[in-house]
Amino acid sequence: MQINCERLKANLLELGKIGYNENDHGVYRLGFSDSDMQSRQWLQEKAKAAGYDTYMDGAGNVFFGRGTLDRPAVLMGSHIDSVPAAGIFDGSLGVIAALEVMQTLDDHQVVSETPVWGVATAEEEGRFGGMLGSQAIAGQLNPDWLMSAHDADGLYLKDAMAAQGLNAMDALNAAWRPEQLKAFLELHIEQGPVLFQDNVQIGVVEGISGVFNWIVHLRGKPDHAGTAPMHMRSDAFMGLADFAHEIERIIAENGTDKTRITVGKVELKPGAPHTVPGEAVFTVVGRDTDEKVMEEIANACRKALSAIARKHRLMFEYEQISWLAPKPCSPSLTDLIEKQVQEMGYSYQRMPSGAGHDTQFLGEITEAGLIFIPSVNGVSHAPDEWSHWHDVEAGTNVLLQSVLALTGKSGK
Amino acid sequence: MQINCERLKANLLELGKIGYNENDHGVYRLGFSDSDMQSRQWLQEKAKAAGYDTYMDGAGNVFFGRGTLDRPAVLMGSHIDSVPAAGIFDGSLGVIAALEVMQTLDDHQVVSETPVWGVATAEEEGRFGGMLGSQAIAGQLNPDWLMSAHDADGLYLKDAMAAQGLNAMDALNAAWRPEQLKAFLELHIEQGPVLFQDNVQIGVVEGISGVFNWIVHLRGKPDHAGTAPMHMRSDAFMGLADFAHEIERIIAENGTDKTRITVGKVELKPGAPHTVPGEAVFTVVGRDTDEKVMEEIANACRKALSAIARKHRLMFEYEQISWLAPKPCSPSLTDLIEKQVQEMGYSYQRMPSGAGHDTQFLGEITEAGLIFIPSVNGVSHAPDEWSHWHDVEAGTNVLLQSVLALTGKSGK
Repeated sequence: MQINCERLKANLLELGKIGYNENDHGVYRLGFSDSDMQSRQWLQEKAKAAGYDTYMDGAGNVFFGRGTLDRPAVLMGSHIDSVPAAGIFDGSLGVIAALEVMQTLDDHQVVSETPVWGVATAEEEGRFGGMLGSQAIAGQLNPDWLMSAHDADGLYLKDAMAAQGLNAMDALNAAWRPEQLKAFLELHIEQGPVLFQDNVQIGVVEGISGVFNWIVHLRGKPDHAGTAPMHMRSDAFMGLADFAHEIERIIAENGTDKTRITVGKVELKPGAPHTVPGEAVFTVVGRDTDEKVMEEIANACRKALSAIARKHRLMFEYEQISWLAPKPCSPSLTDLIEKQVQEMGYSYQRMPSGAGHDTQFLGEITEAGLIFIPSVNGVSHAPDEWSHWHDVEAGTNVLLQSVLALTGKSGK
Repeated sequence: MQINCERLKANLLELGKIGYNENDHGVYRLGFSDSDMQSRQWLQEKAKAAGYDTYMDGAGNVFFGRGTLDRPAVLMGSHIDSVPAAGIFDGSLGVIAALEVMQTLDDHQVVSETPVWGVATAEEEGRFGGMLGSQAIAGQLNPDWLMSAHDADGLYLKDAMAAQGLNAMDALNAAWRPEQLKAFLELHIEQGPVLFQDNVQIGVVEGISGVFNWIVHLRGKPDHAGTAPMHMRSDAFMGLADFAHEIERIIAENGTDKTRITVGKVELKPGAPHTVPGEAVFTVVGRDTDEKVMEEIANACRKALSAIARKHRLMFEYEQISWLAPKPCSPSLTDLIEKQVQEMGYSYQRMPSGAGHDTQFLGEITEAGLIFIPSVNGVSHAPDEWSHWHDVEAGTNVLLQSVLALTGKSGK
């Protein structure tokens, strides 16, 4: 049994026109924007036309499937909202692939006792914080957050939802009970370079990396860049540079091949060409799939920064903005996915996900599995995001076979 | 013969009240501001009251002395304008010390055939580019620059001067011919930590460091900080950090103890915590008193940046914003100053000036010498700039003895 790639492609391209911007060739479907809501309506019409039941829950999640959800269901899906100037695959692939899998099952008159449904989650990308829809399904929301969440322009989530005819408090009614679900499966583009560079078709995701986010202050003394001899300086930037130089060693000593440490944002004060930087403020973001490893690299970063601060006569302070534990995918579901991939003969690798996905919240209430396909050049969150159709087809076939295996049906 | 430190102190404190801001305790006498012009008027009145002739030239420089300038004169002085939130010593010390030396010579009825005059130069600090007064005296100005110079708020120099009753084009009439001058002497605070930290009273300045100013671009590839493995990144910041790490080696191999290399300003793009920096834009400012050394360190920086760019898969480009050659002080005048210091028994060291001073332009038309006294903690351009009165006294006595030596008189 194989999915119909032409139908899948036509649907993805049609969805990709909603919110498309002619000028930068990017997709704009920010959570609860008009184009986001338009895409949800388009999806519901598409599902109805294919003969499925469909509804939108209080969080804006769109569900589609057939029959009553009176037994534990297999749910497939991803998000349908986008970042500004996005490509057409991020999120949308998993939603359209879910629809395609359901249609393929129908094409082959596969009827299972397990309900098979799809979902397009709401506000995954973070306009108001992100993962709203999957958190709602997993029962992780609370009224205080719903009332206070706002976007970067100060627009409140509750007002943005109200403008679309939704009551933010209704998101609290969107929670599923664990016994309603058998499994959740998400197909997504990798959004990184690994599969593409290694020329591998499928990524079997073992878990989503944990992440810590620090804001570090190194404080020295601003000096005239001409009058202060090198050895009399307390140059905050040189402290930062020394730390950056230690990152490779810190990972080699304490990390794994899944460890990432990134300095993405730097501000020097006063930040003038002729003044020795008196202060450096910068972010350190660390990731790994193992929380013990996260603790070890965090500890090593702390030690390195303390020692460097002493050497350069600097004050070292840091604030831990967040610490999110790794979220392993369901081991049994991951094995099940791997088995399908092996049987289909696709090249694959087991890998972590460095980015967050709806799977991590669905994993709180059911067995959750995540399948990656390659992103060309590793690009995502940009108009030049692309994935090859043969990989889209392969990934969707893996999703199909995994659903068949989960529902006890055969489609080989 | 000794100067009168109480009189000097009273004059400096009185001048320090002009443009004083109660809130931040800083002095605000920006070039051609009302308070700057008020200080010039105060100085002229002070000089007149002491029995001197005084005039303001077309550039706003205030001269004071006695008798016609029909023979090569010994000119002493510095600037009287300030940066925003300045201390009371930067520039003003050299002007008030010049007046004090003249008054001391009068107190002791020293009459020399060589005219001894003082000057308070205009707009040294850089509101409109800096060193306006000394450039005018040295004949380095041109009409095009005078008409186009403006401050950071877009106010034109010509308009700021007109508001004070000055015609900017008259600055072209302020040039002195070399034969009108025998020597120029400037007493200034060090504005750096060397004398203070080494507990030395006098700096005999051998020359003003040359300086080059680069803006460097390292361009890599912005990536998701979670999905991009460390070895697949083209992280522009890591390139910058590697370069910063090489600065110590570059100076050790190619520089001297007078070499300075500073990265003072850094911008990472896109500059987000969860994104690998795709571009780093930063300044590199290099200094030395020997232009050959400047060339060697510039060359070494270029080589290091090229090699690092290759290693990190980055593009390297740089723009040389400026290259100012070192300006040696007059060797004979420097020796003459050193001799006076030795005879007076002050502790001293020969040293470079890392910052620019009026001396560098006066040196274009006459023998020019520069004397430093310690800045407490090396601080300048800030309200907490300070120099001890005993050092002020010592420095002014060195100025006095140097003038006596230059005019063939004795005051031991």
